[in-house]
Amino acid sequence: AGTAADGPERIVVIPGDGIGKEVVPAAREVLEAVGPDFEFEEADAGDAVKAETGEALPEETRDLAANADATLFGAAGETAADVIIPLRRAVDSFANVRPVRAYPGTDALQPGTDLVFVRENTEGVYAGHESEIAPGVTTLTRVVTESASEEIARYGFEYAAERGSRVTIAHKANVMRTTDGLFLDTARRVGAEYDVDADEALMDALAMHLVQRPEEYDVVVCPNLAGDVLSDLAAGLVGGLGLLPSANVGDERALFEPVHGTAPDIAGQGVANPSAVMLSAAMLLEYLGYDDAGERVRSAVTATLESGPHTPDLGGDATTSDVTEAVLAKL
Amino acid sequence: AGTAADGPERIVVIPGDGIGKEVVPAAREVLEAVGPDFEFEEADAGDAVKAETGEALPEETRDLAANADATLFGAAGETAADVIIPLRRAVDSFANVRPVRAYPGTDALQPGTDLVFVRENTEGVYAGHESEIAPGVTTLTRVVTESASEEIARYGFEYAAERGSRVTIAHKANVMRTTDGLFLDTARRVGAEYDVDADEALMDALAMHLVQRPEEYDVVVCPNLAGDVLSDLAAGLVGGLGLLPSANVGDERALFEPVHGTAPDIAGQGVANPSAVMLSAAMLLEYLGYDDAGERVRSAVTATLESGPHTPDLGGDATTSDVTEAVLAKL
Ligand SMILES: CC(C)[C@H](C(=O)O)[C@@H](O)C(=O)O
Ligand SMILES: CC(C)[C@H](C(=O)O)[C@@H](O)C(=O)O
Repeated sequence: AGTAADGPERIVVIPGDGIGKEVVPAAREVLEAVGPDFEFEEADAGDAVKAETGEALPEETRDLAANADATLFGAAGETAADVIIPLRRAVDSFANVRPVRAYPGTDALQPGTDLVFVRENTEGVYAGHESEIAPGVTTLTRVVTESASEEIARYGFEYAAERGSRVTIAHKANVMRTTDGLFLDTARRVGAEYDVDADEALMDALAMHLVQRPEEYDVVVCPNLAGDVLSDLAAGLVGGLGLLPSANVGDERALFEPVHGTAPDIAGQGVANPSAVMLSAAMLLEYLGYDDAGERVRSAVTATLESGPHTPDLGGDATTSDVTEAVLAKL
Repeated sequence: AGTAADGPERIVVIPGDGIGKEVVPAAREVLEAVGPDFEFEEADAGDAVKAETGEALPEETRDLAANADATLFGAAGETAADVIIPLRRAVDSFANVRPVRAYPGTDALQPGTDLVFVRENTEGVYAGHESEIAPGVTTLTRVVTESASEEIARYGFEYAAERGSRVTIAHKANVMRTTDGLFLDTARRVGAEYDVDADEALMDALAMHLVQRPEEYDVVVCPNLAGDVLSDLAAGLVGGLGLLPSANVGDERALFEPVHGTAPDIAGQGVANPSAVMLSAAMLLEYLGYDDAGERVRSAVTATLESGPHTPDLGGDATTSDVTEAVLAKL
């Protein structure tokens, strides 16, 4: 990614549908407040644009994301898959990074949860080759390559090495012997280059262990669908998707999004919790090299979660803008 | 399956490795005590046989299971996949039925858990067509057919209709549009024939909701791998695999197994908990039409879980045979 020396970074902001429209602007205020001289561009995606234009992800939005230094996305409704999968591809992201923590203010089933999923973001069942090969008989070609496995494993081990943490490699190589076998062998080989403790877990056994002892896990490197399911499972342990940020990381650009959806039940009321997208903005800052600014945002958000004000999802009666003001005041 | 009128049912008993060798004989004692005039045959499978003969599942064992009315299997170690997948096929099982309950005596994270996974048992990624199509590029063909989807959905809805319970259809049709699309459409069509409440859930969202509110679910109909992962997740909510039974159900025969493995840490000490395989034996009795005997076994096991004696996994110091005697006494 570029640095400030190359001129201002271009940030594309895509609020999307539902509460995306309320929380993304709040996160943009926070980004503006911490200072880097970003150039913002706003773009559309989601159910509403589709209803108007027939396209959930307009060509123009895709192109903006494909050329920006970073994109901040809110949420999309029914069209989520049609928006997020092409956007992940547009930014050439290979890693989907999902920190799952029991943030202060969360009523967590497992308060010791503090781990990061590093999910392969390009292939597996998401490679998307499906067909009806005979009436009533359908197939999907799951793809696993050594190059993508190597890239995600390297990202996971680098990430763990920087933080002094452990890696767990998730797989189902006892059944998917060739494909997950390749994923596992490659991750083992990459792991051997790092001075990082690592172990391996079958994804089914891991699902059980994550529920029972999440505190034993640090960085979990996963194939695409395994990462999808296991990270949502872990979100359940910390009280839901409401506070969780994520990053779709590529070499040149990246896409940041809260893990939550459009929350149609509360959309339009101005009471959505902006924390998850603000924490995603903190990841964006760090991705672009503004580590201090990123840390300032994360600290201000966690301090506000701890002290309040709280939006209704956390049992309070504050509005999105009450929370945003509190975060801005703490920066 | 045959009934007593056709002559004694043939039951194949495969202890396998580790604690399988200790708990399966205990369950056989219980089956003998409740009376149906079964003809038992014992057979080998697992790591130990493989070390001796090179085959984890000897042809003879496979043939016995393929011709018996029911098979009771314990556990296998490293060779688990080489034993259990061919055995499931040998009995022509299409449904893997996994009741997950917070049994008395379990230290459950979610004590309200009481649901049943009805997992498709023949296809999906388990259909097993994999290849390395170029150096470092591998594929697996996931297969979903209308006929298998219909069979599993029908089993799930019948099961729910008999018990007055609800059905949730798990899928990932927003990504696997053709294959899980077929699974979902077929399950919807079958569901419309039944007077049973049904809803649908994306498997990732379901993973989160199961962690948070398992009491909201009854019968969960799943594609093969989804059922594998979600049922282990749910096992985590009730304190692990230790007490959970399962059935691999076909039209003519079936295979029953505890969900737990070989427990190498305690194998050989005579202190393994026989409850899961006894509860599997109760499912075997019901499958063969001996509903009263099945219910007697289930009641005796749950009463023993409630009152003790307890094996060390439940905090007691009883042996497998102490528990077996207690269950026999309560029949
Ligand atoms: C909307 C869907 C395509 C997406 C995924 O499966 O990756 C979502 O579940 C997620 O995890 O971001
Ligand atoms: C051992 C393995 C092949 C098996 C499976 O994936 O079905 C196991 O995890 C299970 O759920 O019984």
